[in-house]
Amino acid sequence: MEVMDAIRKRRSIRSFEDKDVEEEKLKKILEAGRLAPSASNRQEWRYIVVRNKDMREKLAHAACNQSFVAQAPIVIVCCAETDEHVMRCGQKCYPIDLAISIDHMTLEAVELGLGTCWIGAFYEDEVKRLLNIPERIKVVNLLPLGYPSYEPSFTSRKSLEEITHYEEWEKRTPS
Amino acid sequence: MEVMDAIRKRRSIRSFEDKDVEEEKLKKILEAGRLAPSASNRQEWRYIVVRNKDMREKLAHAACNQSFVAQAPIVIVCCAETDEHVMRCGQKCYPIDLAISIDHMTLEAVELGLGTCWIGAFYEDEVKRLLNIPERIKVVNLLPLGYPSYEPSFTSRKSLEEITHYEEWEKRTPS
Repeated sequence: MEVMDAIRKRRSIRSFEDKDVEEEKLKKILEAGRLAPSASNRQEWRYIVVRNKDMREKLAHAACNQSFVAQAPIVIVCCAETDEHVMRCGQKCYPIDLAISIDHMTLEAVELGLGTCWIGAFYEDEVKRLLNIPERIKVVNLLPLGYPSYEPSFTSRKSLEEITHYEEWEKRTPS
Repeated sequence: MEVMDAIRKRRSIRSFEDKDVEEEKLKKILEAGRLAPSASNRQEWRYIVVRNKDMREKLAHAACNQSFVAQAPIVIVCCAETDEHVMRCGQKCYPIDLAISIDHMTLEAVELGLGTCWIGAFYEDEVKRLLNIPERIKVVNLLPLGYPSYEPSFTSRKSLEEITHYEEWEKRTPS
């Protein structure tokens, strides 16, 4: 599948088929995340692959009771082992680097016929307690992964004109 | 180009051919960024497309004198118009959402034969001053865009085993 097709086809999937994800496909998805670029090649991403149903239900509860999180056969708990380095621009590396890696995984998932959903609404302390995650580690995102049971319509987006400026902030059309 | 091929082929490009980027290709890249998902569909990304050579040189200077930034025929200055909303997990939305959108652009660039480089080493105040960016806006990344003049070798990555855990933090092999 072409990159742009994957980008166009990607949806936030909130209902999954009762069908397991093949180990080979999971490996390809983790590989896509592994190959991501990061600031000074820090590679702060750490992924916990949760297949256990009881644990997925506990994670769904920790994710503000979003029950579809447990319905997915896999939840990838996306963590950062980080020194919290701040770049010259003032941004911390780890949220950006984790997002690059997770985005790689979400697009590769589309290529493999799978669906994901970025979940930021969860209680980090509770997720860390459930999975015995050390204090020093950050949990950045929960990523349920499975075969979509439906095809949601595309959520609207601002137009290119609304998000693009030219040469300087105030200039909204190209020269 | 398949998603995984684009992921494998992507490099941080720090030298560019003296060749302009076609408007049509630029549009496709911005479109890839536009279609990204974001927390509650906030779409906080705003992109300033800088083609002016003098300005690119000033941006390169603001980017800690990384001269290749000026060599690229386009620098996309990646900004966030943000309410700095914090998700339940404790992370701010905007750095993650911007990174998703920018990652989309970097992969679409590969598909189109173009190269990019994530630049976080820059003085934000100076970039804002140069481009008349309002105080409330964050500048998250500079993204030079152009035709690569070389093919860098792939930077090494940790192994899948080093970054993957199973069922809980301490478990390093699948069941």
